[in-house]
Amino acid sequence: MIELYTFATPNGRKISIALEEFELAYEVYPIHIGRDEQFAPEFLEISPNNKIPAIRDGETGRTMMESGAILIYLAETHDRFWGDDRYVTLEWLMLQMGGIGPMLGQAHHFLHFNPGKVPYAEDRYATEAKRLYQVLDTRLAKGEYLSGSYSIADMATWPWISRYEWQGIDWANYPNLKRWYLTIADREAVQRGYDVPEFTTSIPRPSD
Amino acid sequence: MIELYTFATPNGRKISIALEEFELAYEVYPIHIGRDEQFAPEFLEISPNNKIPAIRDGETGRTMMESGAILIYLAETHDRFWGDDRYVTLEWLMLQMGGIGPMLGQAHHFLHFNPGKVPYAEDRYATEAKRLYQVLDTRLAKGEYLSGSYSIADMATWPWISRYEWQGIDWANYPNLKRWYLTIADREAVQRGYDVPEFTTSIPRPSD
Repeated sequence: MIELYTFATPNGRKISIALEEFELAYEVYPIHIGRDEQFAPEFLEISPNNKIPAIRDGETGRTMMESGAILIYLAETHDRFWGDDRYVTLEWLMLQMGGIGPMLGQAHHFLHFNPGKVPYAEDRYATEAKRLYQVLDTRLAKGEYLSGSYSIADMATWPWISRYEWQGIDWANYPNLKRWYLTIADREAVQRGYDVPEFTTSIPRPSD
Repeated sequence: MIELYTFATPNGRKISIALEEFELAYEVYPIHIGRDEQFAPEFLEISPNNKIPAIRDGETGRTMMESGAILIYLAETHDRFWGDDRYVTLEWLMLQMGGIGPMLGQAHHFLHFNPGKVPYAEDRYATEAKRLYQVLDTRLAKGEYLSGSYSIADMATWPWISRYEWQGIDWANYPNLKRWYLTIADREAVQRGYDVPEFTTSIPRPSD
């Protein structure tokens, strides 16, 4: 049994989706960020950066923080979801960790949570969001998934794209990314993982 | 022989330092960001996100983008610098990739390159820089390096800390991080890697 410490955010959903995809048994421990539960001493023991998601693997006793590290741990432990090439998967997982997550996260902060407050930053992160969507679209014109077949790189990236409504995106520009997004949205494991720790909204779907 | 595509930035220095630490032969190909060389078609073939660093490994023919992926590739290929525990190393490498790099990068943009333009963002990223320094200091109170012994997680994190002068840091608050920073600054491989692709400044050293 795996203990999953999470909340309904893109980083949290990476791991609930992955646990569903890997078909692993897990118990969910919601960490309510609005109530500062991420600063509780027992959580900081697992996640000293005070961020979700984190896990404890009951079989090994190991705890893990950082979604990218957890995904590598799961993929190595169960030898699944490496796509067509382990290192290509790691390249795109790292692009998600270093670019897509942090920069779309800033877009959420300025465009969605603080609109009208800092036009300079809204423009900066909306521009970067468009650039990253273009990088992904170009990639997905060459293959069905980021690393050929479905992998942990897709599981890491998809939850961030599922927040496209906060990112000022015009889907007409990204037909390959849209096809990839909708294909993954149809996966039952993704649908189950999306609703962890609880149902908040249906998976958004771009209109035609 | 490894071909290294890089520039004198923290992400670039991660890999030049690593290649020196791994004692690998490499040729340097500077990618001048100010001249838009990162958008050249032959570079985009290696790095479709148009970012340095990237490598081509002449022995295998493999190309790699994203510093985190390159570090994992080097550590796996040569079975070195995994610290005391492979997964702890991956946790702190991921914290560097997802937090320390992107957020300190935003601090550089607003505090150093655009001071006085967006006070809200300056405050946001200066606050996050202090939080991350505290996370690292707390960690390094418990061990000499991030994963016990020296690892790719340290190589990834150190170049970002070496830009502390752009981040509004008061070193008096981070004695453990300062000890770690200066210890690594004394490594000859780090000093050689810091000057790739060319000497720009000496490694900065906090005064007492």
